[in-house]
Amino acid sequence: MASPALLAVDWGSSSLRAALLDAQGAVLQQMAAPRGLLHIAGGTWAAEFDKLFGPWLARHTGLTTLMCGMVGSRQGWLEAPYAGLPATLNDLAGNLAWVRPGAVAIVPGLCCKTADQTADMPDVMRGEETQVFGALRLLGLEQAPQVSLVLPGTHSKWVQVRQGRIVGFSTHMTGEFYALLRQQSILARLLPKQEPDFDADGFDAGLALAQSPGGLLHHVFGVRTRALLGQREGPWLASHLSGLVLGEELRAQDAAGALAPDQPLVLVGGQALTARYRRALTQRGFAAGSLHQVGDEATWAGLAGLAALAGRVDLPRR
Amino acid sequence: MASPALLAVDWGSSSLRAALLDAQGAVLQQMAAPRGLLHIAGGTWAAEFDKLFGPWLARHTGLTTLMCGMVGSRQGWLEAPYAGLPATLNDLAGNLAWVRPGAVAIVPGLCCKTADQTADMPDVMRGEETQVFGALRLLGLEQAPQVSLVLPGTHSKWVQVRQGRIVGFSTHMTGEFYALLRQQSILARLLPKQEPDFDADGFDAGLALAQSPGGLLHHVFGVRTRALLGQREGPWLASHLSGLVLGEELRAQDAAGALAPDQPLVLVGGQALTARYRRALTQRGFAAGSLHQVGDEATWAGLAGLAALAGRVDLPRR
Repeated sequence: MASPALLAVDWGSSSLRAALLDAQGAVLQQMAAPRGLLHIAGGTWAAEFDKLFGPWLARHTGLTTLMCGMVGSRQGWLEAPYAGLPATLNDLAGNLAWVRPGAVAIVPGLCCKTADQTADMPDVMRGEETQVFGALRLLGLEQAPQVSLVLPGTHSKWVQVRQGRIVGFSTHMTGEFYALLRQQSILARLLPKQEPDFDADGFDAGLALAQSPGGLLHHVFGVRTRALLGQREGPWLASHLSGLVLGEELRAQDAAGALAPDQPLVLVGGQALTARYRRALTQRGFAAGSLHQVGDEATWAGLAGLAALAGRVDLPRR
Repeated sequence: MASPALLAVDWGSSSLRAALLDAQGAVLQQMAAPRGLLHIAGGTWAAEFDKLFGPWLARHTGLTTLMCGMVGSRQGWLEAPYAGLPATLNDLAGNLAWVRPGAVAIVPGLCCKTADQTADMPDVMRGEETQVFGALRLLGLEQAPQVSLVLPGTHSKWVQVRQGRIVGFSTHMTGEFYALLRQQSILARLLPKQEPDFDADGFDAGLALAQSPGGLLHHVFGVRTRALLGQREGPWLASHLSGLVLGEELRAQDAAGALAPDQPLVLVGGQALTARYRRALTQRGFAAGSLHQVGDEATWAGLAGLAALAGRVDLPRR
């Protein structure tokens, strides 16, 4: 094995992932553990870190560690104050929070006021900022005039970037709404317990309905009614519900002027979920050539980029 | 006690309410029990009915019973097929489902295709149709050219009536969304366990934000962010969340062309919840004089009106 230059850690609410990277940012070794912020008592972060990474760090002395995610929140190891917008990778590198000076640092999250000026609503992220810069690096889009990135999940993030500068973002609780409706609402007993195979027709019908005026609170009730009237079966309805919530996310982004089909859009995440977004965005006029996808490797590329800026690895500038 | 002419029953999913009415429709006696569709095994409805109402019926022989609600659903005592739209009180009276011929009948629910023509989405109600006609009767609006009725709750119903004819309706899962977000989502731990006093400022800010383009999935995340940043306290945030979901219901109805501030609107339900709708609708341009409120008595008035049409009571026609 080549000599590691960086220990990269994505430490979130429910779990963590980590990788040893060489000086070029290539992944040498990876690990994951179900040990997130929710499982770690205040004051025990350092001990947890040593237990998890002691063996690696003992073998590779002098290694720098960079961490992103909820580890930098108020309930985390050390609160890394949010950086504001616009934010470049340089801004993040200049605001690392060192929990062990010279050895272990946490990447700051971002905070913004969103476009909802009526109420000056704030929004925040921790971890996604690193994925954004990593994805741009992997795709060679660091200097693109305008790029949107979507990081789907429990709390989907939409991020607007101009020439390597994050200028705005907004969070949508799409995945959490889907899970609540799927598992806890009146719809739960009508839908299969196990997530069924994707049903393209049900999903597309959900996307289309989400664009009509009735609104999410109304459209979702239709899942129940269709089941009640025996019009549709569980697998169709589960994909329909998925289309309704994802479609509402797109409708809202469109209404906010944040859908730009003529500009590149990057989907960051696993294949199954990003494929649904790709399908929906294609139906909204995005050309296949303007849609990109990057997986978990975005985090490692982002942390490697930060380490290079901080002079910790020799990552070639692109 | 005057002689009862009708046993009126509102038998829903989780509970039932019943009243003995005299020939003029006045309530002589009432009861309620936590015995709804969810608690009653198939095939045991008749026995349940006799246990609940045997004493009343033994004392007042020959009494007619009219029931509305989920008792008429497929999982109820007898499925009372949905009536279609437009529907008058006469249409309901002509389609009573008699479980005990000449003695005990169930009011049919309504089924409609909603305005979402893209997907021909159906919608249904059971019980609310009776409340609608009862409320119109109590307010003397049976022949009004155009009335909207809102029956807020777990599944809010918006109903459009023209000259005593229900011509359209739609269901919004507003109350259920609020409960899910309040109790089961990531917001739950940020909000007071007990429902705090109404906070007018938080509620109004939620209503206003709901009209801006970000969308419900995004706006709701702001509850978490404001708590995280220490901007707002629990009581403000709980009322804010209430304003967000109620405001989304109004936004959607407005976008569907179903808000008519120049026509009468009737709120059917308890004081606490209808007061929130009254406040929101006033902010949307409804004059105080065009907003009416009717409580639980709407059900009794609706069932009495049906019994009169069916020749079971001598209720004076108005």
